[in-house]
Amino acid sequence: MSGKAPELSLIGLTGLPEIRQGDDLGALIVEAASSLGLEFRPGDILVVTQKVVSKAEGRVIPLRDATPSPLARSWAVLLDKDPRLVELILREAKRIVRMDRGILIAETRHGFICANAGVDRSNLPDQDAAALLPLDPDGSAKAIRDRILALCGIEVAALISDTFGRPWREGLTNVAIGVSGLLPMKDYSAAVDDFGRRLQATIIAAADELAAAAELVMGKTERIPAVLIRGYQYEKGEGWTSMLLRPPEKDLFR
Amino acid sequence: MSGKAPELSLIGLTGLPEIRQGDDLGALIVEAASSLGLEFRPGDILVVTQKVVSKAEGRVIPLRDATPSPLARSWAVLLDKDPRLVELILREAKRIVRMDRGILIAETRHGFICANAGVDRSNLPDQDAAALLPLDPDGSAKAIRDRILALCGIEVAALISDTFGRPWREGLTNVAIGVSGLLPMKDYSAAVDDFGRRLQATIIAAADELAAAAELVMGKTERIPAVLIRGYQYEKGEGWTSMLLRPPEKDLFR
Repeated sequence: MSGKAPELSLIGLTGLPEIRQGDDLGALIVEAASSLGLEFRPGDILVVTQKVVSKAEGRVIPLRDATPSPLARSWAVLLDKDPRLVELILREAKRIVRMDRGILIAETRHGFICANAGVDRSNLPDQDAAALLPLDPDGSAKAIRDRILALCGIEVAALISDTFGRPWREGLTNVAIGVSGLLPMKDYSAAVDDFGRRLQATIIAAADELAAAAELVMGKTERIPAVLIRGYQYEKGEGWTSMLLRPPEKDLFR
Repeated sequence: MSGKAPELSLIGLTGLPEIRQGDDLGALIVEAASSLGLEFRPGDILVVTQKVVSKAEGRVIPLRDATPSPLARSWAVLLDKDPRLVELILREAKRIVRMDRGILIAETRHGFICANAGVDRSNLPDQDAAALLPLDPDGSAKAIRDRILALCGIEVAALISDTFGRPWREGLTNVAIGVSGLLPMKDYSAAVDDFGRRLQATIIAAADELAAAAELVMGKTERIPAVLIRGYQYEKGEGWTSMLLRPPEKDLFR
């Protein structure tokens, strides 16, 4: 295009098979990339959807395995949801943030605040099952990254993304729930602007923006569960998703 | 790269001059693109930062023009801010959402909920001034779009972006505060997933994801105030930013 302008490209990795428990997701991603004629390069970022990670890690639970507690049964009526689904949500939640108008917003054990504690029924071959978030999404990201390093000899960064709502604004956006190989925050607070003024309080949640950008390529079915991002300048490092979570004492909207 | 994989590219438009009140922003963007050897194509999306739009539209106010009211003076002490800046914030706000720990989160007259009602002092040549949000950011987006149509004969979509915080998660992300030429929401709720299940409640805030993606190319100074996004499949239409704002009766976090 032009040698002078900074450019970012995002490439959707099509051609992955339906993921099953125990699948080697890293190897399948390498294979899909290779079928598309892509070779990983140092500095590449791979964004992988939570759903395929949960599938590979056996976090898809048949609803018949979730015997609802009395609380789950009573909340199921209030929320107009399947009591077995509510049972799974309650098991995943460590705190209920809001429960109103059929909506259940909960904090997961990882510290994510999202609808239904991340429990979700879309894009599952078993119509009577639900997917839970990975137990350790940073570890999931690291495992994919390590696998690509082992198979291709290339160090990439990896993000696990999920689709969350947010207060005040309509619509969902993708955010990062797992990070490995890059610092999730880009800190401009030591930088000065073009006129010598210090950029106060300007810490950008780069990992969330990368996840959001990847969604634009993924769409909402599972045909593109991974996106390669090329051209983003990031600080390497052992990032953790916990860096993206606001500590309770700083949160005005608990 | 590959003919089979969907690909999105984002190109930062460098080379724009420092923007002054009355500047023809659309024409300057066309000129910058042209210097980079870029030609607009139908379906391109242009993301422009709020700050240059505010500059062009005369929304940069010298602090000496903001005589603080008694309320602004008293809140300035509580918030540890310049009373003239607080005066401007109060003029821009239609509702105070939270005021605590030195943080003022307000709803602007447009309905955006953000820190300091969008009033911001970074990246201004006058160190003793503040930029307010454009009065009608959808109109600002439409004006840029119309200018590109007039100059190049090409219909693009345009977004105005700004950097907002959010509850629960640390770090800022770019969101869309002005939209023209595309529907800001991508609605998958009529779609079925790969297994025939209806994708419930899956409305993606595509305009916000596009703004977030553009930030990855912009960085935080003003050297790249506009980004061209190419390859995103969107629904054309007269979108309005108000579609991105949750109505009060649906918001559990007012």
